Amino acid sequence: VKRLSETGLIDWIRRRTPKDARVTVGIGDDAAVVRGSRRMVLKTDMIVENVHFTRKNSKPEDWGYKAMAVTLSDLAAMGAVPEYALAAVGLPKDLGPADAQAVHRGMEKAMRLANVRLVGGDTCRAERVTIAVFVAGSFKSGKMALRSGARPGDALFVTGRLGGSLASGRHLRPVPRLKESEYLMRRFRVRAMMDLSDGLAKDLRLLCAESGVGAELDARRIPVHPDARGRGVAAALLDGEDFELLFALGPKDAERLERGRGAAGGRMRFTRIGHIVPKQQGFTILSSHGEREKLPPAPDHHFGS
Amino acid sequence: VKRLSETGLIDWIRRRTPKDARVTVGIGDDAAVVRGSRRMVLKTDMIVENVHFTRKNSKPEDWGYKAMAVTLSDLAAMGAVPEYALAAVGLPKDLGPADAQAVHRGMEKAMRLANVRLVGGDTCRAERVTIAVFVAGSFKSGKMALRSGARPGDALFVTGRLGGSLASGRHLRPVPRLKESEYLMRRFRVRAMMDLSDGLAKDLRLLCAESGVGAELDARRIPVHPDARGRGVAAALLDGEDFELLFALGPKDAERLERGRGAAGGRMRFTRIGHIVPKQQGFTILSSHGEREKLPPAPDHHFGS
Repeated sequence: VKRLSETGLIDWIRRRTPKDARVTVGIGDDAAVVRGSRRMVLKTDMIVENVHFTRKNSKPEDWGYKAMAVTLSDLAAMGAVPEYALAAVGLPKDLGPADAQAVHRGMEKAMRLANVRLVGGDTCRAERVTIAVFVAGSFKSGKMALRSGARPGDALFVTGRLGGSLASGRHLRPVPRLKESEYLMRRFRVRAMMDLSDGLAKDLRLLCAESGVGAELDARRIPVHPDARGRGVAAALLDGEDFELLFALGPKDAERLERGRGAAGGRMRFTRIGHIVPKQQGFTILSSHGEREKLPPAPDHHFGS
Repeated sequence: VKRLSETGLIDWIRRRTPKDARVTVGIGDDAAVVRGSRRMVLKTDMIVENVHFTRKNSKPEDWGYKAMAVTLSDLAAMGAVPEYALAAVGLPKDLGPADAQAVHRGMEKAMRLANVRLVGGDTCRAERVTIAVFVAGSFKSGKMALRSGARPGDALFVTGRLGGSLASGRHLRPVPRLKESEYLMRRFRVRAMMDLSDGLAKDLRLLCAESGVGAELDARRIPVHPDARGRGVAAALLDGEDFELLFALGPKDAERLERGRGAAGGRMRFTRIGHIVPKQQGFTILSSHGEREKLPPAPDHHFGS
């Protein structure tokens, strides 16, 4: 493997990066200069070896793809359109320039899903593979989808199917639901939206906490991914790493979405899984036998655990 | 030490973060929403334990301060004003919530230098302390300072004094030269500017490569920091981690800056250290004996080394 200096790697990335009318100054100066907008959306996410992936079960391209895709997913969850990305990449000594290039190709693959341009980054040595991606974007629809707007009576939906993501390796290739987000933002008044990373049971609680409400799910409606291999609704609730959208619509919009699915081209999957209730009713789930049960508790990630 | 969950840490940070009219959505949603501008400046930097600092010689507050300060320094180098920050922080298992809070306090200390607001972040486990900071800002002066505008005949200046930063521990508390940057951008036509992180000898070459020029330094004029402890100009050229500004001004602006220093309040230090020459003349330095010598080579950081 030919040795590639840090300067060499940056030059290689720079040459691969297409010109872009939105970018006044791209890779190579102290910072990037881009065309802004009245409201900007900013997000960072970090993935780390042995926490979010292992080298045994994935390759450098996967790391880059996942780091970028999960950050784009957060912009989809805001109803925003991602435009610019920056990446800070730390690689251990036993990885060479070919690996750094593969990480970059993985990021490119995710960026191509959304016309996102890489405008800067930082590379350094690290003891474990570490990739922090930053994305900036804007609201093309003129509206934004926060976590805080859900009200009792709203219908709850998810995109895609949930569960089994980590065990199956699907977590390495999430498809950020940007198309679905754009479709929803353009045609509906999305009351609240977020993306699912820690499992429906935990993330639903986070969304509802911001909205000051509770929720009831219907176990029979929750779309379980085949990757869950028969583990059923528990997998959908607790596994995490789904990167699907969870969102609330008012009753009329909910009906309109369910009626109008054909118009969406059929490739998008939206499933109504429950509804918002007043805060004091807490979190419940209708079991497959139609009984109202408490929603399983959501484990929190602790420092020190 | 009381255990603090990830959610608890985020809540703690959120409560400490002042309201800000520029910030529509801050910490707590999928992404932040901020007031943008026509042109936005974006930058990320990552610092890693045992690469940019050691636990033996520094404390958690230092790590947060340094990670934020060096990123702000890059915005100063663009002639930009930093406005928003996001941070991705990875901490090893043996560090607890008090350490995570100390890292945050260090970042706050740097942010207060510049009215920068933290609007988002990510925390996770890592095998070594890893902090990636992202900063967004804008150009208040209406102008920007790239690396590419230097021309033969321009005078070269630096802020502050150079050398001995790593050995002395000064690298943990760099002062981003935002005040100096603002002063220069408001009153002068800054032809080219960058901040010094890898040492004057290397960074000067980077600036000149972007401008398509060479440079001649004058060893007798280079301001050597007392931290260099008698190692002289070599320390100033090669040590790195100074985070001072290197910039080029046309001859008239150079004179005006040197004459007008009193007007700057005297607290800012600008030193003329040489001038830009045509590319084919390369990189030279006038020694303390007044002899023209080749500028010492700049080591590059290699993947695999």
